[in-house]
Formats: sequence, structure tokens, C-alpha cells
Amino acid sequence: MQIAEPLLRAIEELSKLPGIGRKTAQRLALHVLKSKDEDVSKLVNSLLELKTKLHYCSKCFNLAEGDLCEICMNTKRDQKLICIVEEASDVIAIEKTNEYNGIYHVIGGTLSPLSGIGPEDLKIKELLKRFENETIEEVILALNADTEGEATSLYLARLVKPLVTRVTRIARGLPIGGDLEFADEATIGRAMLSRNLL
Amino acid sequence: MQIAEPLLRAIEELSKLPGIGRKTAQRLALHVLKSKDEDVSKLVNSLLELKTKLHYCSKCFNLAEGDLCEICMNTKRDQKLICIVEEASDVIAIEKTNEYNGIYHVIGGTLSPLSGIGPEDLKIKELLKRFENETIEEVILALNADTEGEATSLYLARLVKPLVTRVTRIARGLPIGGDLEFADEATIGRAMLSRNLL
Repeated sequence: MQIAEPLLRAIEELSKLPGIGRKTAQRLALHVLKSKDEDVSKLVNSLLELKTKLHYCSKCFNLAEGDLCEICMNTKRDQKLICIVEEASDVIAIEKTNEYNGIYHVIGGTLSPLSGIGPEDLKIKELLKRFENETIEEVILALNADTEGEATSLYLARLVKPLVTRVTRIARGLPIGGDLEFADEATIGRAMLSRNLL
Repeated sequence: MQIAEPLLRAIEELSKLPGIGRKTAQRLALHVLKSKDEDVSKLVNSLLELKTKLHYCSKCFNLAEGDLCEICMNTKRDQKLICIVEEASDVIAIEKTNEYNGIYHVIGGTLSPLSGIGPEDLKIKELLKRFENETIEEVILALNADTEGEATSLYLARLVKPLVTRVTRIARGLPIGGDLEFADEATIGRAMLSRNLL
């Protein structure tokens, strides 16, 4: 096959991205090739700035441009309410709801004995340290609803219960717009158990 | 919503790419953020090199690093056989089959009176000029099998027929591995008409 070397290289690099196969990578590369120089440099600069300008917040380990993230610096947010999530992308997901006005703590994953990830690999020590310096009343556990997330939630709940007034976990149940017919048994079972009084 | 500015900008730039929505863009941006500096600069450089190192072949308008593309420069290829395609990506698709050993001509699209694309917007003048300088025996039309592709094929066939011995078009029929049950009527109808003697 005779394909120009720079194109092959771009396809190879693009196909390393998650969810991008060789066909998509080729389409993206050919798109870039056709794009205006200005648009390509905008894209490239935005990627480079991601690496140079963004770091992790020294307090909650969310993404931050400076030492602290915008959420930690925002004095209008409820500093007594702390939401524990797995990844910085989860902070974005919760922020999009506009339902939460507290602060966060990103632990950076879940406990996974099989993969050798123990409590010391997550930002749990740093979490406990926050209870010494901050006045936190409620801890909301918002980890994923899979096995590792559940196990880590239970572990964290036991750990922080003595330190705060309330430890809660976000609800599990039928997704909004979700069809009962297409929901799995575990979700329906949980939704039944956690039913609300009207 | 309080998301760090560089992340927002990267998501915006990435979601301008074809087939990349905001959710995918966010996943890609967060992946880049987590990647090693070295991997990011490899990706970025490959994209920049696409724009700086690749041009269009002055003869066939395929992608080329120099004045001529690798296919036009390859003396082992059959110079009497020319395959007309719409885009450079079609050259890649055909090259991958390893079934073709001739040369190409990329016309850069299809005729489309509704979008105001006439013969002068495609590389048709350049194609006709090649017949003066080169000894071409067969023209293979390998345009897409949609309405515009068909119309452009017929237009080109009429144009080049007086100039060469043979004008052919790649076969239309049931795709390999294709199920008769799931093929559309037009494809089955064409496959019946173009049936081969065994």
C-alpha cells in the first residue's frame, strides 16, 4: 500500500486515542488535512495548553489552572458539604446538573485488590486530612454504581462516619426517561427497595 | 458550571472534528490530559506535519510529500491504466485491496448542479490534459455508487470515450459477506442485471 508517510503517522497517533479506530482516525486525519491552517493550529494549541495550563487542585484534586480549582476558590459554595467522586470527569458531570452547590474531593479511582489498587493509591489520606482543617458536615458519596464503586463507597463510608454528621450516597434507581421494560433486574430491584413516599 | 477554561477550549476544538460530539470530545480531552507529555507532542506533531509536509500531487491530485505522489513516481505501476476517484481517501481504500496496479486521478468531488459544483470545479481539465501527454489505454471509473457519483461517471465516460480504448466502471452488486435479505432493492436489482456467467 502506498500511502504518504505523514498521513500514516497521523492516523497511527490518532488511533491511539480512546474510542478512535483506524477508519475514524483516517477520516479525522483527512479532515485535518483539508482544514484551514488557522483551525489546525487552534486545535493543536488547545491540546498543548491542556498539558501546560492544567494541573490538579491541591485541595480536592479536581482540575485546576492554579493551585486551587475554581470550585474550591468559590466562596459562595457550601464548604460544609463535600462530594466524593472517582474522577475529574465526574465533577464535570455533576456540575452540569446545576443541582449541587457544595465542594468535591476526587479520589482518583476505586479500590481494586485484583489490580493491586489499595487505599494508599487513592487520595484517601488527603481526604481524611481535610476533615482536620475544614468543618465538613455531610459527605456525599457519588462513585460509580458498579462493583468497585460500591465497595469503595462502603469502605469510605465506614472511614468517614465517625468524622461527620451525615454520610449519604447518591440514589440508584430507574434513569429518568428509562423504560421499565428495558431496565436490568438489579436496577429495578434497587428502585423498588429505595422507593419514595409520595 | 465551573470547568477549567483550557479544558473547555480543548473540548470545543475537538468537537469541531467530524463525528466527534461533545461527550466524545470531553473523553478525548481528559485522555490527552492524562497522557504523557511525549505522547501528546507526538500526536500534535503528526497533525502539524500533515499540514506542512503533505500537498497534492501535481499530476493526479492524490496526496503527495513532494511534487508527485508515491504512486505516480512508482515506475512499476501500469501507466496505461488510470483509475478516476472522487477523493484521496478513495485512493487509500483501493490501495488497501492490493488488487490494482495502475495509476489514479483524483477529481476532488462530484458534479452537483444544486450545490453549484460544475466541471470547472473538479480536476477534469487536468484529467483531459493527461491524455495528451500520457499513453492511457483504459480508464476505470471508481466513483461512489450514489446519484452524484453515477451522474459524474456518465459525464466522464462520455468525455473520455473518444480518447481511450476502454472505459470501465467498477462493479455494483451484493457486498462480500452481504446477506441478500438485508440488501436494498436497488442493489439486488443491479446485482441481478450484472450477473456473471459461471
